[in-house]
Amino acid sequence: MSSTLDSLIAALPEGTVVTDPDIVASYRQDRAADPHAGTALAVVRPTRTEEVQAVLRWATGHQIAVIPRGAGTGLSGGATALDGAIVLSTERMRDITVDTATRTAVAQPGLLNAEVKKAVAAHGLWYPPDPSSFEICSIGGNIATNAGGLCCVKYGVTTDYVLGLQVVLADGTAVRLGGPRLKDVAGLSLTKLFVGSEGTLGVITEVTLKLLPAQHSPCTVVASFDSVEAAARAVVTITGKIRPSMLEFMDSVAINAVEDKLKMGLDRNAAAMMVAASDERGPAGGADAEFMAQVFTDNGATEVFSTSDPEEGEAFVAARRYAIPAVEAKGSLLLEDVGVPLPALADLVSGIAKIAAQREVLISVIAHAGDGNTHPLIVFDPADTDMAQRAELAFGEIMDLAVALGGTITGEHGVGRLKRPWLAGQIGPEAMELNRRIKDALDPAGILNPGAGI
Amino acid sequence: MSSTLDSLIAALPEGTVVTDPDIVASYRQDRAADPHAGTALAVVRPTRTEEVQAVLRWATGHQIAVIPRGAGTGLSGGATALDGAIVLSTERMRDITVDTATRTAVAQPGLLNAEVKKAVAAHGLWYPPDPSSFEICSIGGNIATNAGGLCCVKYGVTTDYVLGLQVVLADGTAVRLGGPRLKDVAGLSLTKLFVGSEGTLGVITEVTLKLLPAQHSPCTVVASFDSVEAAARAVVTITGKIRPSMLEFMDSVAINAVEDKLKMGLDRNAAAMMVAASDERGPAGGADAEFMAQVFTDNGATEVFSTSDPEEGEAFVAARRYAIPAVEAKGSLLLEDVGVPLPALADLVSGIAKIAAQREVLISVIAHAGDGNTHPLIVFDPADTDMAQRAELAFGEIMDLAVALGGTITGEHGVGRLKRPWLAGQIGPEAMELNRRIKDALDPAGILNPGAGI
Repeated sequence: MSSTLDSLIAALPEGTVVTDPDIVASYRQDRAADPHAGTALAVVRPTRTEEVQAVLRWATGHQIAVIPRGAGTGLSGGATALDGAIVLSTERMRDITVDTATRTAVAQPGLLNAEVKKAVAAHGLWYPPDPSSFEICSIGGNIATNAGGLCCVKYGVTTDYVLGLQVVLADGTAVRLGGPRLKDVAGLSLTKLFVGSEGTLGVITEVTLKLLPAQHSPCTVVASFDSVEAAARAVVTITGKIRPSMLEFMDSVAINAVEDKLKMGLDRNAAAMMVAASDERGPAGGADAEFMAQVFTDNGATEVFSTSDPEEGEAFVAARRYAIPAVEAKGSLLLEDVGVPLPALADLVSGIAKIAAQREVLISVIAHAGDGNTHPLIVFDPADTDMAQRAELAFGEIMDLAVALGGTITGEHGVGRLKRPWLAGQIGPEAMELNRRIKDALDPAGILNPGAGI
Repeated sequence: MSSTLDSLIAALPEGTVVTDPDIVASYRQDRAADPHAGTALAVVRPTRTEEVQAVLRWATGHQIAVIPRGAGTGLSGGATALDGAIVLSTERMRDITVDTATRTAVAQPGLLNAEVKKAVAAHGLWYPPDPSSFEICSIGGNIATNAGGLCCVKYGVTTDYVLGLQVVLADGTAVRLGGPRLKDVAGLSLTKLFVGSEGTLGVITEVTLKLLPAQHSPCTVVASFDSVEAAARAVVTITGKIRPSMLEFMDSVAINAVEDKLKMGLDRNAAAMMVAASDERGPAGGADAEFMAQVFTDNGATEVFSTSDPEEGEAFVAARRYAIPAVEAKGSLLLEDVGVPLPALADLVSGIAKIAAQREVLISVIAHAGDGNTHPLIVFDPADTDMAQRAELAFGEIMDLAVALGGTITGEHGVGRLKRPWLAGQIGPEAMELNRRIKDALDPAGILNPGAGI
């Protein structure tokens, strides 16, 4: 094998192929921390499209699997290494140019989401998608998973902001799809097909992003409830009438975990807390906030607080974002990502509580409630084999529940390797076959991220 | 052949298969009026997915081409009949149900866009995409072409509102893709792949649409310019700062053609007219209108008129929508649909004027200027063979020009049969090959809309 690798090393600039065992080991897992992760032959860190092409030509020639990897923050094991594979990390592909006239940016995939936001903000522009992990996740990974976030309830998900891509196919061919045109229907919608394809169809080497003018400062409303159902009812009433720019949910476990850490005076007795915002301009933002506060009150909120002060509002958003690390302090997490049509939100949350009771594990639920997209956080101790097993059972049962409620096994994190056994149960045999036909057409040898996604 | 057709007739409810020669002849062309249209064996008008499946199973069994057709308003010849093919018209598939709780509608493809808008408006909801032909085009055709419209500059195009589809594949398999979930990343983005596929991958039999709360009443600004460049400069300034809900352009030919018919007092001496709107709520809408009026003035507008009266505003929008029929009064039209990145808009329009002069044909340009999407209307007399030939040359040269300016041969109408020879020139051989691989994977026998789209 070392002579095989030698030809790859020779084909690329010095330092691009890393074989140091410690470094290679550090690329075994992503944030899903899959215990079944393998060990790659090498980690390849190209800086240019041509280098990615060389890697894939070599991989096709030697029938070696390639695991594309962004910042390694994926939560479904989409970037878990396999024995004998190559991990292709885009971390060194970090250029960006912003064009204010077309209101677009052209970025390489390794740039972090926060870096994209910052680069475009310097031109008075805004890239909306905001995964909670925006400070540590890459734009390429966002596109590979069609990532969501908090503002998606109003502004849509990553795919809505991808106008063009350059991708490298399994055989090393580089293809440009779309470009800085707001409308373009020439040929099949291949740009959109590659968004969310989890590295199974090609490697993204450049993206053209649609940008918006800078966001207006939001008005924020925070409300506590003594029942989850009451909070869920309020969500449906709100989204039926207005377009909030954020509509987030935390359950009592998350509230208390955050309060333990941040000590900001959250209501420890609440069963649910909502953090909502409107970024409509001028008095409309305040009117929306007032409307949401009224809906919360009408639905039995025990406490409602509104603010138009951006910093005060951001403190509550930060609290919501902090929920995952705060709950993680209680143990290891199996992080779920199930979604349902909005009216089923309360049934999903109460069903999850039943699963938690039955499997005797702690499950905290946080949610992008306005999208019906929840993140049940299953807390377990990996050293306790029985508990770990019960947590895994709960993980699957939550997906089964979401599907039974007309929902999805993954709203924004991707199928990866962890959720693959549940995919067919959601989309059915005909759609599975259709996925497979497209995968086979684009990657006939199956070298791209085998075992992940479809 | 008649016995072949007999088996189709027998497989479907009475009246579904139409063989009356006059009726079949009326389905030869769509609005592109392709003179090379063939004549189908029969027109099939199913009402249910199961009937569409029966048609496609039969077509696959007999290797007969199927031309899917919505309302027949396509402008690129995507529904032109072929000799020996079957035209599959969705015109009798007209059900719709609206769900206010999920803010979605499930519709059959034959419903007109205006009927969808009306059905959801009855529930206080809004389906934004608004092709100029919205009163006569079908929602299925809108999805098959990823149709645009006037409000797309702020609200995006059809694909942004398609959450789910049921499609019937070439072999008759029915597949459900997506559904009433605002976020769902399970499996490849196949819903998006079918949007804009022009009937080449499958037949859409049901759509799940994302809806918004009702639109707010817009403030409208109308401005006249003595140069196209000045108007184009204003467009770039506006979209860099705010999000207008409409930003439309008409050239002097269109202005005069509309004024000939409507006599509403448009400035006949103007080189260009802009119709812009903002639907931001409360004072923000007026502030946007004021900003746009100022930008128009700063860029040398000869006349600027603002109104917050919805009826007065709608009169100007109607004038813009009326431009195509008004110019059509001057002769037959070859209707173009080219788009460019915004800064190239003025170069595109002036380049088109040069082509018109060189080919000695009248070309009027109207545009969804905020999207960089233009509709050059090439006027010709089909009885004048030499002029018809010059018009066809201009048609191709305009696409070549758009591509040279970094643009697209079609922004929202589709490639159809008319633009197919120019597709490879825009997207390049690698993307063509990728399109072809997907087409072959989904329709290996090539029976779905052969010769159209990809």
